[in-house]
Amino acid sequence: MQIAIVLFDRFTALDAVGPYEILSRAPGAETVFVAERTGPVRNDSGSLSLVADRTLDDVPVPDLVIVPGGPGQSAQMENETLLGWLRNADATSTWTTSVCTGSLLLAAAGLLKGRRGTSHWLALETLKDYGVEPTGERVVIDGKYVTAAGVSSGIDMGLTLLGRIAGDRHAQSVQLLTEYDPQPPYDAGSPEKAPADMVEEWRAKSRFILR
Amino acid sequence: MQIAIVLFDRFTALDAVGPYEILSRAPGAETVFVAERTGPVRNDSGSLSLVADRTLDDVPVPDLVIVPGGPGQSAQMENETLLGWLRNADATSTWTTSVCTGSLLLAAAGLLKGRRGTSHWLALETLKDYGVEPTGERVVIDGKYVTAAGVSSGIDMGLTLLGRIAGDRHAQSVQLLTEYDPQPPYDAGSPEKAPADMVEEWRAKSRFILR
Repeated sequence: MQIAIVLFDRFTALDAVGPYEILSRAPGAETVFVAERTGPVRNDSGSLSLVADRTLDDVPVPDLVIVPGGPGQSAQMENETLLGWLRNADATSTWTTSVCTGSLLLAAAGLLKGRRGTSHWLALETLKDYGVEPTGERVVIDGKYVTAAGVSSGIDMGLTLLGRIAGDRHAQSVQLLTEYDPQPPYDAGSPEKAPADMVEEWRAKSRFILR
Repeated sequence: MQIAIVLFDRFTALDAVGPYEILSRAPGAETVFVAERTGPVRNDSGSLSLVADRTLDDVPVPDLVIVPGGPGQSAQMENETLLGWLRNADATSTWTTSVCTGSLLLAAAGLLKGRRGTSHWLALETLKDYGVEPTGERVVIDGKYVTAAGVSSGIDMGLTLLGRIAGDRHAQSVQLLTEYDPQPPYDAGSPEKAPADMVEEWRAKSRFILR
């Protein structure tokens, strides 16, 4: 099973590395980071670089596609090199997936039309512009399309998908080995749970440029 | 505040990127990935490279040190270049921290002697060899030393520490923006919760070479 994780300038690191850490542990998985060009790709804050080892052209028929999000997503929404690759890869993929605003890229490629999906909570409504029905769930599976909510939700997506791919016991082993027994010190991880004024503050000054 | 995240060959990616994604969002933080040499550093599975932008020598007095773990930790246990840097950095740091078997590197440098600490559940007992009292907690704070359990626990450590550094409200904002509202599809994330035969299986074939 070949897993392709797409990188682009100003992606969010945990969007990519969360599902990577889980799904790269699937039996027989070959995981490759891909981008338009090989070499280091800078994240949203500019202080982290992940290396793309292969170009998009090098990896035309991955079994599993993972598209992270991040502020850099907006600059890719009309990038036909990337969107065309997503359409072609999707034509033969077993699973096509996203984390955070990565779902807007799948949507812009036309892959989620008429489907249920999710995204970062600040970007949910934008899915509608592409004919996608947003849901408040953390991980949404609609056919072979799996979308996750913001940033850290890619870990939950990874485990959910690993269970489908390799069985519950393998997924549980990976959960045990990555010691994924979350104990956040606060309970503010969703707009329903965070203080209302905090949610409004971020809606007002959203760093996401969504179109 | 300067944050230094230490990279070494065969580190575990999420150990580093989990706390990175949280703590790099502290107000005024400058986060740098450091290693003996600049350039790409390969992770445990070999399919991911994070770039070290600075050498250890370039970053002598960070305010916050983060040491990830991973199978590559064992090859560093007598690396005096790294251990000496850790001792020097610790002499002036505000916080000295680790994720997973990164605590064994802090222990090997002599920094945790007589303190409480934690590590990956498969490595907990090894802490005793260095005069460290292992605990079953996910995040352990003893003075300025903060150690986290395996892999994904670095996210919880990051949020806990961010609260101390920047206040509860800022930490909650970061939790909201990273949508850290974990919903694992299984409940097997610790040796107490996973099936007993699975725990025994991994104890028997532990991939960690601990000394």
